[in-house]
Amino acid sequence: MAKVTARSPLGPDALPVMPVIAGVKLASGEAGIRYKNRTDLLLVELAVGTTVAGVFTRSQAPSAPVDWCREVLPKGTARALVVNSGNANAFTGSKGVVAVHGSAQAVAAVLPCAPEEVMLASTGVIGEPLDYKKIEVALPALKASLRDDAWADAAAAIMTTDTFPKAATRDVGVGGKIVRLNGIAKGSGMIAPDMATMLAFVFTDATIAAPLLQDMLQQSNGKSFNSITVDGDTSTSDTALLFATGASGVKIKKDSPEAAVFQEALNGLMVELAKLIVMDGEGAQKLITIDVTGAASDDAARKIGLAIGNSPLVKTAVAGEDANWGRIVMAVGKSGEKVDRDTLRVSIGGAVIAEKGERVEAYDEAPVAAHMKTRDIRIAVDIGLGQGRAMVWSCDLTHGYIDINADYRS
Amino acid sequence: MAKVTARSPLGPDALPVMPVIAGVKLASGEAGIRYKNRTDLLLVELAVGTTVAGVFTRSQAPSAPVDWCREVLPKGTARALVVNSGNANAFTGSKGVVAVHGSAQAVAAVLPCAPEEVMLASTGVIGEPLDYKKIEVALPALKASLRDDAWADAAAAIMTTDTFPKAATRDVGVGGKIVRLNGIAKGSGMIAPDMATMLAFVFTDATIAAPLLQDMLQQSNGKSFNSITVDGDTSTSDTALLFATGASGVKIKKDSPEAAVFQEALNGLMVELAKLIVMDGEGAQKLITIDVTGAASDDAARKIGLAIGNSPLVKTAVAGEDANWGRIVMAVGKSGEKVDRDTLRVSIGGAVIAEKGERVEAYDEAPVAAHMKTRDIRIAVDIGLGQGRAMVWSCDLTHGYIDINADYRS
Repeated sequence: MAKVTARSPLGPDALPVMPVIAGVKLASGEAGIRYKNRTDLLLVELAVGTTVAGVFTRSQAPSAPVDWCREVLPKGTARALVVNSGNANAFTGSKGVVAVHGSAQAVAAVLPCAPEEVMLASTGVIGEPLDYKKIEVALPALKASLRDDAWADAAAAIMTTDTFPKAATRDVGVGGKIVRLNGIAKGSGMIAPDMATMLAFVFTDATIAAPLLQDMLQQSNGKSFNSITVDGDTSTSDTALLFATGASGVKIKKDSPEAAVFQEALNGLMVELAKLIVMDGEGAQKLITIDVTGAASDDAARKIGLAIGNSPLVKTAVAGEDANWGRIVMAVGKSGEKVDRDTLRVSIGGAVIAEKGERVEAYDEAPVAAHMKTRDIRIAVDIGLGQGRAMVWSCDLTHGYIDINADYRS
Repeated sequence: MAKVTARSPLGPDALPVMPVIAGVKLASGEAGIRYKNRTDLLLVELAVGTTVAGVFTRSQAPSAPVDWCREVLPKGTARALVVNSGNANAFTGSKGVVAVHGSAQAVAAVLPCAPEEVMLASTGVIGEPLDYKKIEVALPALKASLRDDAWADAAAAIMTTDTFPKAATRDVGVGGKIVRLNGIAKGSGMIAPDMATMLAFVFTDATIAAPLLQDMLQQSNGKSFNSITVDGDTSTSDTALLFATGASGVKIKKDSPEAAVFQEALNGLMVELAKLIVMDGEGAQKLITIDVTGAASDDAARKIGLAIGNSPLVKTAVAGEDANWGRIVMAVGKSGEKVDRDTLRVSIGGAVIAEKGERVEAYDEAPVAAHMKTRDIRIAVDIGLGQGRAMVWSCDLTHGYIDINADYRS
């Protein structure tokens, strides 16, 4: 069913070398949920005492696994994560609820642990009941094959229509010791209709209490996954989870210098994962980095950046290598945020094109046209009203997007 | 420069026969503002005593003519309308202000009237200074050629990248007499980069005081131009003006039965013009009608409808003739309005596909698949929470959209 789409030209050549995270073991396998001849199920076992934080889709029609995670998250601890690809278990009614309970109980039985310590995520088709018995049957073999170095296989198992696996890692020096962060993500290339979701799972061996972990995740999430867009559509299943096993023995406390260092590393890792998702956007040929400064607030800057990044007219102009700054002005104007036409400054590729309400007198299109031919497009907008700033990432809108999403189902 | 694009397959075969509106005379001509060998300037002369109402883009970076109209509109009367195509006079700084003042003064001199009685609209490229001297030079010949039956030429002169002209007419019986409404509109097919705007001008021979006229325009606008979407992008120049010449001698008063009848006719005419704009959406091959019921309010219903109509994933699914109801659920879920996954009902082409949080047991895809092959796609969503209702119109997202908006500038 899935149409084979070429690997995105924006993807990195290889995954980074992923170190072991003490307290984390992974295994993946073929449960045959939808795909044939590829892995579609990931089991992650987490050390006793692992804390967990989560952020989820803002959709009012969330998937059953999102409901489940929200329900068990207040407990603040986790012993396992199970992710399947091929079926989102979304808009599946009472069958979906049965499937998440059945899955969690099956994991709890083989590990063993309590069902409420099992975090679940599903990605794939919406509206098809998920046959969780296939997960139940596959679990014992996965349990037997858990390893601490199986990160590349894990990143591959959670892919749906992604054209490359996505992972990132960071080391952080904390009080003379090293703590590590590994993250994997999927999204949002789409090959067959119905499929799209952003999932990210980040693991650290630091000891961090659940409330602080939640704060840290939310702070990083705003700068990373909530600052990217491919098409402005929000999945029923978007999930980002952050697990802290504590196995390094290094404790990070609220408001400490160590917490600030860790937060910085987490921000960097999550921005890296978020950019990888945009680089695998459906049909993407160019990465667009939008730097908004001078807005009334950071949040206003992010919304202005997303208005630019979501605009089909800006995205098609980038696809056409057209330095169409009028469309950027249009997108800023429609953002709904406070802006002033006459203090706005628009730059592309470092060249100021428009300011004080009109095109600059000495505008030379040649260097801007050359910049538009690259894969790495830089748009900067200064609103000229305040100190708010945000970075947003998007990709161009190409014939590939239509091919992937509009072609007849086979 | 403009690429020739085939006439939209959704357009009507011909303009309706447009009757004379007493008190309205029109003339169009070639001012050579941007296009060659086609008309690009429209002059409309309005009888003494004509009242005017207007609604404009919500963009925070509006064009100079939008600023001008907002400035003079409180006066409530108009003697002329001048519209040029090819240049939007947007983001043109102080030069743009000079151009609108110069244009209004030139019209005032030839008509004659006061400059503040001249309404202006421009559509075309953003960021290029408008040479209003070309308008000034062309005006005397236009003044000499004013006629009361030149509606088809008027509809053609305001086109930019439209593939067909757009007009509609209504007769209304008021107290044994007939009042008439004629409207012309343009938008939002795009052929060359930089161009897009929705303009609509409606004329009646009824006598209606400016404050009532403004109320009526705003009410109809919510149900028509504010309920359509092609790509979710908002122009710097969107303008809808309603003129009442009073030449029929029929007076319509606030809260009268006549006002209700007139409002109904105005609603119908503006919805017809709005649908014509969607039918000429860039690359459109199918019209999508979205009927949202059971929302918390009419406004919530409209926002939910626009979330569906703006979703690239819904629009590409329609282009691919794929009854992808999961994407409709996704779009409802991301609308930001109050919805409940478990009371939602989704129908396509009259067939209920999903309700109570899951796909209906007896779902037969065959009739829905047949409906998806037509040009007139009907999506109905019942939220199941209240009495709010709205109709929204959109079009599919096709390779034609990318061709029109992403191809290299020649």
